[in-house]
This record gives sequence, C-alpha cells and structure tokens, in this order.
Amino acid sequence: MPQAASEKSKRASRPSANRFFQTTLQQYRDLTNETLLADIPTGGPPYLYDLVSSYPLRAGKGLRSALCLATCAALGGDIRKALNTAVAIELLHNGFLIHDDVQDESENRRGAPTLHREHGVPIAVNVGNATNLLALQRLMENRRLLGNQVSWRVMRETERMMATSLAGQALELGWIRDNVCALTDKDYLQMCLRKTSWYSFIYPMRVGALIATGRDLGASDFCSLGWYVGAAFQIQDDLLNLSGDYGTYGKEIGGDLLEGKRTLILIHLLKHCTAKERRRLIAFLALPRNQRTNDGVAWIFDRIQHYGSIEHVRRIARQLVGAALLEGVTAFRDVPDSSDKRFILEMILYVAERDR
Amino acid sequence: MPQAASEKSKRASRPSANRFFQTTLQQYRDLTNETLLADIPTGGPPYLYDLVSSYPLRAGKGLRSALCLATCAALGGDIRKALNTAVAIELLHNGFLIHDDVQDESENRRGAPTLHREHGVPIAVNVGNATNLLALQRLMENRRLLGNQVSWRVMRETERMMATSLAGQALELGWIRDNVCALTDKDYLQMCLRKTSWYSFIYPMRVGALIATGRDLGASDFCSLGWYVGAAFQIQDDLLNLSGDYGTYGKEIGGDLLEGKRTLILIHLLKHCTAKERRRLIAFLALPRNQRTNDGVAWIFDRIQHYGSIEHVRRIARQLVGAALLEGVTAFRDVPDSSDKRFILEMILYVAERDR
Repeated sequence: MPQAASEKSKRASRPSANRFFQTTLQQYRDLTNETLLADIPTGGPPYLYDLVSSYPLRAGKGLRSALCLATCAALGGDIRKALNTAVAIELLHNGFLIHDDVQDESENRRGAPTLHREHGVPIAVNVGNATNLLALQRLMENRRLLGNQVSWRVMRETERMMATSLAGQALELGWIRDNVCALTDKDYLQMCLRKTSWYSFIYPMRVGALIATGRDLGASDFCSLGWYVGAAFQIQDDLLNLSGDYGTYGKEIGGDLLEGKRTLILIHLLKHCTAKERRRLIAFLALPRNQRTNDGVAWIFDRIQHYGSIEHVRRIARQLVGAALLEGVTAFRDVPDSSDKRFILEMILYVAERDR
Repeated sequence: MPQAASEKSKRASRPSANRFFQTTLQQYRDLTNETLLADIPTGGPPYLYDLVSSYPLRAGKGLRSALCLATCAALGGDIRKALNTAVAIELLHNGFLIHDDVQDESENRRGAPTLHREHGVPIAVNVGNATNLLALQRLMENRRLLGNQVSWRVMRETERMMATSLAGQALELGWIRDNVCALTDKDYLQMCLRKTSWYSFIYPMRVGALIATGRDLGASDFCSLGWYVGAAFQIQDDLLNLSGDYGTYGKEIGGDLLEGKRTLILIHLLKHCTAKERRRLIAFLALPRNQRTNDGVAWIFDRIQHYGSIEHVRRIARQLVGAALLEGVTAFRDVPDSSDKRFILEMILYVAERDR
C-alpha cells in the first residue's frame, strides 16, 4: 500500500522520539500486565479464570493503563497507588474486547482466534463478565489503598465511563441494525467520543489525575484532549482495518466492511459516489453479515480508492492530532517537564502513526 | 401429564396459604417493578435503555426482590431502605437472563421471543451489560441511603454473589462443552448452589438482613436455607422445562434437552439406562446444538419416563423442601411472627409447587 509506505517513512523521520515512546509504553505495559496476571484467581472451574488471561497473554498495546500511570506520575502522584486502577482499566478493556468480538463476529484478535471462536459464544460471554468482575474487585480494593473518598470518586468515574461506552456501542450497533446511511462526519465523531475516546483516553487520564491530586476534577477536564486523540486513534484503527498488515495489526483485514461498520471512510464514500453506486453500497450493507461476499468488499475497496476516501480521512486524522496536541500542551502547560509528560505528548503523535 | 395434575391437586389442597403467598409476592413485585421501570433513563440512543425495560415489562415472578424486602421487614428493617437494593437485584437478574438466553440460544422468555431473537446477539449483549450497569448505579446510590459502612457491605455481598454465579455458569457450560456425562447428584447440587441458589435466594436474604440490622453477617448465614430452596427451585425449573405448559411457563418445552443441560433428570437417566442407550444418549449430547433433532429429544423423553427419572427427581425436590423448611424455621425461630416471616416460609413450599 502506498499509504503504509508513506506512514513508515514518517515514523522513521523521528526515530528517537518513537523509541522513547515505545520503551516507556513497554515498561508501563509490563508492570501492569505482570500485576494483572499475578492477581487472576487460580482456583474455580475450567473455562473461567483460566481464560481471563487469554487476551492479556497476547501482548496488547497496554496504552490505556500506561496513560493512567503516566498522568498520575506527571501530576506528581505515586504510580504505586495508581497501579491497581491501571490493572482495572486493562481488565475492563479486555472484558470489552471479548464481548465486542462476539458482537462483531470477529475472527481474530491480537493475531490469534477470538475467544468465542476458540470456546464458543456461551463461554466467551461468561469470561467477559468474569473479566469485568475482576475489574470491579480491583476498584473495590482501592478503598484500602486510596481511602473512602478517592476510591469512591474513581468508582464514579468508572460508572460514567461505562455508561458512555455502552451508549457509543448502542449507537454504532443501531446504525448497522437500521442500515443508517445518512451520516455525517459529525455523527461519526460523536460516536467516537462515546465508544472510543472516553474509555481509552478520557477515563484513564481522569482517574490518573484523581489519584495524583485527590481532588475532584472539573466535569470536562481532559475531555477535549481525550476526544480528539481518541477520534484520531479510531480513524487509524479504521485505516489499518482496510490497509494494514494482518501480522502486525492482528485482526482480519477488511473486517469492518464485512461487519457493516460506519467508518469515516464509508461515510465519505457514501457522500461522494454516484447515485447508482450508492444504491449498490446500501444494498450490500442491508445484507445479513453472512451474505456479504468478499467480491462485494473488493468492489467497495476499489470505490474507496477511486474517490480518495482514505486520503480524505487521513487528513482529518492529522487535523485531529493537531487539535489534540494543542489541548495536550495547554492542559499540561503548568505541569513541570518530565518523562511522563513527554510520554503523554508523544502518545498524541503515536496514535495516528501506529501500525497495530 | 399425570405429574402436572397431581401437582395441581396438591396446590388446591391449601388454597388460602397459596393465595396469601401470591398476593404478598404480587405486592412486592409491583412495588419493585414500578420503581425499577421509573428509574430507567429515558435519553440515550435507541437499542439501549429502551430495551432494558423489555424483560421487566413481561411480568416475571419478582421472587428475588420480594425475598430481600420480606427478609428486611421480618427482621424489623424499613423496606423503604431496601427497595433500592431490591431493584438492583431484579436488574441483575434481568441482565443475567439476557446473557443467559444468548448463551443457551433460548428462543422464548416469559412468553415472548428472547431479546437476541428480536434484536440480534450484538444488541442483546450490550443491553445485558447496560442492565448490569444500572444495577451497579443503584448499589452506588445506597451510599446516600444507607451510609458508607452498610452500602459497602452490600457491595461486597454483591461481588461475592457475582463471583459465585459466574463460577456456577462456567461449571455448567464446561460440562456441555466437554460433554461430561459421569456426573453424580452431588455434582448437580454443587452446581445449583453456585448457579441458582446464591443469586436467587442466599444473596437476597443476606442483603435484606444486612440492611435491616446494619450488622455484618456470619459467612454462612442463610446459606444452607438458600442452597436447599434454590436446588428445589432449580429442579422444579428442570421439571417444568420437560413437562410444563408453555403458556404458563413461558420458555420452550424440552429446551434443556436441546441445549444439553445436565439436569438431575438426565443424570438419573444416564445412570439407570442400558449401556447401549447410554452410548446413544452420549452421542446425542456430543452433537452441536443445531444437529440435535426433535426425534432425539422425543426418544430421550420416552426413556426418562420409562426409567422413572421424573418421579425420582420429584422425590429429591420434596426432600430438599423439607430440609429447607427445617433450616427456615430454625433461622427465623427467634424472629417475631409476622406476615413477612410467613411469606418466607410459604416461599419454601412454593418453589417446588410453582407452575411458572
């Protein structure tokens, strides 16, 4: 793909910044993941806690927990106090992925079969619930670590994040179910805010800050920053799903089109194609998933290239990164420079450059 | 069915006790259900909170929340303080049913299509999660109603109940997945303790008592009582699934056999049939669900009748009711007589007599 090549050369142009980001990310990821795996119960019947470790053992990015720890540290907090919450964040993320894979009928996750493909939907739904329960237990453990007040605030942030994520998920599933095709870029970005940005960026930063300062946050703290960076992250995910490398990306390429996902790319295509193409596209999206063919996907991919939808969406992602950077620099202006502050600002650049 | 007829005549033999129980149950159910429905958010995208009310609007039994309220009242507590928790109990039950129906591929619930049959698995999984979130929100609301200490204890009871239920569910799903056939009555009763008894009986009584007294409970309070009554309840459910009336029971008859559920009835049959029949039965259970035929189910049903498995299991249910009654009378011996105490003791008799 020409796009992938141009991304690669861009990444190569600032190798040391990228190396710093990746090294720090890996340190935080290892710390969180080791604690997460060590805390999974070992008893109980088969097909429960033994499978909770399944996705965490396939190296994920660990971005969300790292962001929580880095925000806590950048604001002068003790990351040992945030580690428990960072583990909860990764557990919630993995529980979400297990259910999301069932919902999307995804085939692969992190380079291996999805949990429901390996063990069936019934067990996958149960393991997803068990993963969420372990997260709740970790958050309850905060009471001992952080005291009544702060642990309660973290719990309330968690509840708000869950409500927001479920609404985002419902919005996206509703679009697919009702074959909604009259969508604008704004609709997509609103959906991103709820489905991706809140749980992946806003929530980790907010709870990291809460644990560092112990003070109640403003209702909108970190929200613009998290929204923009989350939207850029989601767009990059949509792009990788179309043109990434399976070995690196770990999910089936083109899966979003088979699933009928309303990506910004698809919204651009729907807006710019001919009336006849639009009818064909809408008819494809109206089919049940198992009747959508690879030929249909190939035709859509051809039209996407024809109408320059990928370049258009890449431009929007770059604008979002710029907006996020402005928010990030502003939010952390009064915070002393540190490697954690640098990590957070580098993270903003990373989301639209990543290849997995 | 001769069994159904004999059950009916037994119920008719103590009509006023049964009328008292049903009237009280209905009062508690209406109180809880009205509060539950009034508290469901009205905003948000479609296919989320609009569907959370779907199962609660189909009149359920309301047994679990009524048990919580009655236990609270019988022990001198104010049921207005327990109502919020009673609502959470019903929400958790409904969230569990939504996911359970997906897991079992059930077709009907409370006399209408299951949620995933109406709206697809993706939306059903999401609505199940949203229902659980609303329950968590109710439990967090307890902090204002019951104070820090008691609300925290209720939360810990909830976490313990969830862990137990997920383990019970995993145990049952694992038996189906691995086609485990060498099971004893004891295995079944252990599974019941975790899957049914804890969340349906032990947990509601424990939190009702907690809210009434504010005191920490002993680790095993209400556990034997709840176990026995829950096992009798589950056995009656298994029996209704085989020989109930769809219009009253509300689920498809014979569904457990199609799903490969390890009921006490099936365990009895596996133990008493000939080696040849056992091989045929095990081969049937080894099939994927969609390859299990109605002819196969009819053959198993014939063998169940031939070997008297239903009568055997009905006898065990009666023994369990006796044991539960002894535990109930003992547990509430020092509690002053009241209509709520009477309701709880009547409930023990009801579970093995119910037709829905």
